[in-house]
Amino acid sequence: MSKSVQVHAPATVANLVCGFDVLGMALHRPDDVMTLTLKEEPGITIEHTDIYQLPTEPEKNVAGAALLAMLEELDHPPGFHLVTDKRIKPGSGLGSSAASSAGAVVAANELLGKPFSNEDLVRFAMNGEKVASGVKHADNIAPAIYGGITLIRSIFPLDIVQLSGPPLFVTVVHPQIEVRTADARQILRKEVQLKSAIKQWGNIAGLVAGLLKQDYALIGRSLEDVIIEPVRSILIPGFDDVKSQSREAGALGGGISGSGPSIFMLSEKESTANAVEQLMQDVYTKLGIDFKTYVTSISYEGVRVSPVTVHQP
Amino acid sequence: MSKSVQVHAPATVANLVCGFDVLGMALHRPDDVMTLTLKEEPGITIEHTDIYQLPTEPEKNVAGAALLAMLEELDHPPGFHLVTDKRIKPGSGLGSSAASSAGAVVAANELLGKPFSNEDLVRFAMNGEKVASGVKHADNIAPAIYGGITLIRSIFPLDIVQLSGPPLFVTVVHPQIEVRTADARQILRKEVQLKSAIKQWGNIAGLVAGLLKQDYALIGRSLEDVIIEPVRSILIPGFDDVKSQSREAGALGGGISGSGPSIFMLSEKESTANAVEQLMQDVYTKLGIDFKTYVTSISYEGVRVSPVTVHQP
Repeated sequence: MSKSVQVHAPATVANLVCGFDVLGMALHRPDDVMTLTLKEEPGITIEHTDIYQLPTEPEKNVAGAALLAMLEELDHPPGFHLVTDKRIKPGSGLGSSAASSAGAVVAANELLGKPFSNEDLVRFAMNGEKVASGVKHADNIAPAIYGGITLIRSIFPLDIVQLSGPPLFVTVVHPQIEVRTADARQILRKEVQLKSAIKQWGNIAGLVAGLLKQDYALIGRSLEDVIIEPVRSILIPGFDDVKSQSREAGALGGGISGSGPSIFMLSEKESTANAVEQLMQDVYTKLGIDFKTYVTSISYEGVRVSPVTVHQP
Repeated sequence: MSKSVQVHAPATVANLVCGFDVLGMALHRPDDVMTLTLKEEPGITIEHTDIYQLPTEPEKNVAGAALLAMLEELDHPPGFHLVTDKRIKPGSGLGSSAASSAGAVVAANELLGKPFSNEDLVRFAMNGEKVASGVKHADNIAPAIYGGITLIRSIFPLDIVQLSGPPLFVTVVHPQIEVRTADARQILRKEVQLKSAIKQWGNIAGLVAGLLKQDYALIGRSLEDVIIEPVRSILIPGFDDVKSQSREAGALGGGISGSGPSIFMLSEKESTANAVEQLMQDVYTKLGIDFKTYVTSISYEGVRVSPVTVHQP
């Protein structure tokens, strides 16, 4: 007899405009579909049904590394078989690796009867991020697991704050160019002007207040990044056009998703989000750059679990 | 026939820990008591019933400068006679000048039948701050006028956000030493480490979320300033002792009020706030520095207006 669970692990937007390194948000689309099966014999086996040829050795696989971290804390570790259909393209800036590790640990926790808290799951999944990027960061993991918009107030010790907010539509464009996270990080200056930092913390305070007070206008006014975006947007052709045209079309604002190259825009209305998708398509068609777009909304659920199936052999 | 109004103008705490230059808070005590009388003949006359020998020429007086700015926007400007009993000591770091200019414009607006919005009043009162410090800042003015805790998301254009919060007790100690605002500003570096700035905006986001979610523990964890306080606290003898002992006594946290020398601590319970007052007194008694302490709470009202009196001559 074996038990299986299927999860949908969401794309996430880290570095939410003025919330560089601290604010992230979970989306309904795109998402990875993962099926995890509990095995009595120990060991993790991994299979992919997508085209990305990601590693299947558990230690080198982000989901595998996250599961291994979880198994270390169990007295009688079981085994797992994981089948992933990855639909969030790696390197898109949409938290592809976080979806894998978050999805895996949420699925495993479900199969084990939920012995672990969300915060535990974030700690396990951060091991997946370490495999992917060399750094244990949580700004994609946390929103993927908690859902909605999350603040990582502190990483050591881990302090995650879940932020409520009003309904928001999200339009995403993923121009099919490569921006390496390492490059995107290297381009940043290690020091910033105090007056720019003050602007930035005024804006993040405004954004958090706008979300919690459900004040769309305040959210819009606060969606401004005077430190990271001016530097990183240079790596993304079409960025300035997408941003200015989206604002003209009525979007509240937006910016680079993660370290790029995807760009996201927030809108109060679905019709605005659709108009933003159209103009994003026009910008990249004119530039002759392949792209993919999504019109979606914030997922306040995070990793979505389908009922556990018990297979009688 | 002449009309008079009496107002109580509150002390304010600017630079609220991680909210340097953007967050401020109004207190119930100390406060200035001001009586403003409407005169039919134009012109502003000013009188003080306190010991501070502040200027009485309207252009050189912070309340006078604020009133002059208001009168400029009226077609038929009346005159005012102002009597101030200043109880917030100038140079304390408790927004003494802001209390004068905020109190004056709120009183005048009341006498004129409230033609101006709170935002207008902040703009007028900022002229008083310019007289006091050479800079039109609003981080004491805004909480004095709006009450509670305010965020100045942006100063040009002015964007004030009022933040609700749970009941909080505030203990203040004003060691009777001089810290000049100009010195306190000069000591700051113009550039800061990006990683420190990220910590700071994680904390201010946590503080705003903690206030709006009424989460005392989150407020406490977020009351940390890694940029300004380490530099400025050097100017205030006893600061480190007051801070560490207050935390031990159960205070949520706190820091320098404005640019000092006053220090404030926030507590969930009045008994903690009283214990903090005691230890503040002990610290400065040992140091042989004169001081004044207050146990008070956040004033969610701001400038408090007593009923208008009409004098029949």
